[in-house]
Amino acid sequence: MSLQLPAQFAQFGDARRNGFLRVKQIKEKGGKVAGTFCTFTPQEILDAAGVSPVSLCGMSEETIPAAEAHLPKNMCPLIKSSYGFAVSDKCPYTYFSDIIVGETTCDGKKKMYELLGKMKDVYLLHLPQGDREHALDHWTEEVGRFRDFLEERFGEEIPEGKIREAARLRNRERVARRRLMELQKAQPPMSSGYALYKALEGAGFYFDVEEVCRELTRLADNIEADYAAGSRPVSENAKRILITGCPIGGVLEKTVKAIEAAGGAVVCFENCSGIKAALDDVNPEAEDILRAVAEKYLKIGCAVMTPDARRMELLRRLVREYNADGVVEIDLQACTTYSVESYTVRKLMEEMEIPYMAIETDYSASDSGQLATRLEAFLEML
Amino acid sequence: MSLQLPAQFAQFGDARRNGFLRVKQIKEKGGKVAGTFCTFTPQEILDAAGVSPVSLCGMSEETIPAAEAHLPKNMCPLIKSSYGFAVSDKCPYTYFSDIIVGETTCDGKKKMYELLGKMKDVYLLHLPQGDREHALDHWTEEVGRFRDFLEERFGEEIPEGKIREAARLRNRERVARRRLMELQKAQPPMSSGYALYKALEGAGFYFDVEEVCRELTRLADNIEADYAAGSRPVSENAKRILITGCPIGGVLEKTVKAIEAAGGAVVCFENCSGIKAALDDVNPEAEDILRAVAEKYLKIGCAVMTPDARRMELLRRLVREYNADGVVEIDLQACTTYSVESYTVRKLMEEMEIPYMAIETDYSASDSGQLATRLEAFLEML
Repeated sequence: MSLQLPAQFAQFGDARRNGFLRVKQIKEKGGKVAGTFCTFTPQEILDAAGVSPVSLCGMSEETIPAAEAHLPKNMCPLIKSSYGFAVSDKCPYTYFSDIIVGETTCDGKKKMYELLGKMKDVYLLHLPQGDREHALDHWTEEVGRFRDFLEERFGEEIPEGKIREAARLRNRERVARRRLMELQKAQPPMSSGYALYKALEGAGFYFDVEEVCRELTRLADNIEADYAAGSRPVSENAKRILITGCPIGGVLEKTVKAIEAAGGAVVCFENCSGIKAALDDVNPEAEDILRAVAEKYLKIGCAVMTPDARRMELLRRLVREYNADGVVEIDLQACTTYSVESYTVRKLMEEMEIPYMAIETDYSASDSGQLATRLEAFLEML
Repeated sequence: MSLQLPAQFAQFGDARRNGFLRVKQIKEKGGKVAGTFCTFTPQEILDAAGVSPVSLCGMSEETIPAAEAHLPKNMCPLIKSSYGFAVSDKCPYTYFSDIIVGETTCDGKKKMYELLGKMKDVYLLHLPQGDREHALDHWTEEVGRFRDFLEERFGEEIPEGKIREAARLRNRERVARRRLMELQKAQPPMSSGYALYKALEGAGFYFDVEEVCRELTRLADNIEADYAAGSRPVSENAKRILITGCPIGGVLEKTVKAIEAAGGAVVCFENCSGIKAALDDVNPEAEDILRAVAEKYLKIGCAVMTPDARRMELLRRLVREYNADGVVEIDLQACTTYSVESYTVRKLMEEMEIPYMAIETDYSASDSGQLATRLEAFLEML
């Protein structure tokens, strides 16, 4: 996979695979690992507990048949793939996880965690279903309960100072992620969207957050220097595409890569591994640090929230900031919240007069040709 | 429809249609109506506010094409049908509703209410996602907020005494419903399951709860008297079936009727219009009446809750009490919570050595033949 990435990005393309060794080393040294599935999981609390978070979101169709022995076929491929990895014991990250942290985000995950709980130690965070009056109070209590659980589970107190320290470090990571993503505001953008996504995703498998900050910053420095020296990895004429919707790690080739193969350039990822989660920081000096952590995560604009005004505001802003020529929504099969909300996104884009296209896909290769044709037609239209 | 029902049941078969006139009369007299979608909606609060609740759950495929202009195809037919009725203005109950009360039960409804809110005045109840520590506190607060909203919306105070009064009356309705359902414990059962379901469903469209109590009691009296006099509407040899799963108003003919046409007898409905919602009463003398109301509704065992231990306990109990020979789970297409949970129900039935069959269907007639064949085969196997 690294062969397909520009040299600067090569290390990130391999990060997920190399991470297997890193996580093994963590465990061998007596470290603790928490498998997570969602950007709503408050990383600072895990960090402060000395537990390394790692994403268990499945990205391969390989394990879906194993999952379908227990789960319905008409279900999100990410959920089926993740569960399949657990049930077939094929994912080292799942294997090495001391605990798995779930959340009441969508129906599919919420119910899948019940079955996963029969195999692994699952802790469930109850996320409010919308950001309204009292939601922050309840979510702050919930983050506090999570801290209490971790203290008891691993027999070690989590002092407030550690959470503040974690917030400072994660803020630095978010700054580094934002800086890298903002390079795409240039015309033409400084990098292929595909390579950028691989870096953002790969950084999640470094475990050492200091290293993540360092490497992402070095990557941004290099890209910027090359661009200043005249390098133009993306054509001046490439249509600028903003991606929104579901997590896309499992469908990257037939969507993002297809867009760029057809002469487009993905300049912005609004979704999970992109801007959404890296947008807001935690105030490490806040009087109530738990509330500050809770507040940051509650601000994530995701379709699981009702209403999801924040996503609409963010899309409105990003389309302008990144000067998008078109918006492509990529939703995973049977993702009810995003597929219903796509009607609202479509209306917003009509109002903004930005061409919009919604794709629904799964982890199979069977629709690759059809998607390529549809994406080419969309780009031609811009 | 009433033609197909035994004489005793005739009035209930027409109740939904005749209810159109009743609701019109309520409105003409200055009364207020609240459209609801779920048994988690605390009726006592609406009653106490002088607002008549009516179910808006769509049961017809006729309005689904209109809904699919806004909603995804791969979605629960009940949600699409209900939304279609609203968007095409074809449902008098939706038309006459002063407010619509939604709830954060499943992803599909949660997100559909956002779109419905553009046409109608929608109030959303935030239901806890599981019955754990603090859930009852939060849900009690939520029920209180609902009361406050109704007071403000309709400009009238809701005294505690009215809630207690409503609880007493609704308890009487639940007693009447339970008594009617318990007649099926007899061997052979005292009524066809199809006719029983029609009565339970139809009673929801009487609006006058005193009348509901009276009519359901009279119906039970009549059935019991006929049975005592030797009437046997169901064969001694009919296999006794318990129905579980999603709301089935829209698929009754091709499931319940098909089971009974094939020589089975539905002796128990564990689902929404059946036992689940009528199981627990509200203590009208409780010190905190809001908490007592909240407690009753939080006890409903539905797949939207995680975990859903109450449904499993109830199924275990009902299978024994109603001496079921087999369990048929009827799930609606794309209902994630029930379709995932059906794995857990299957495991429970294996443990109890009760034959179990799960059906997934929608509101079209296209699978009627296939379902009839599968249900016949299941009954033969018993």
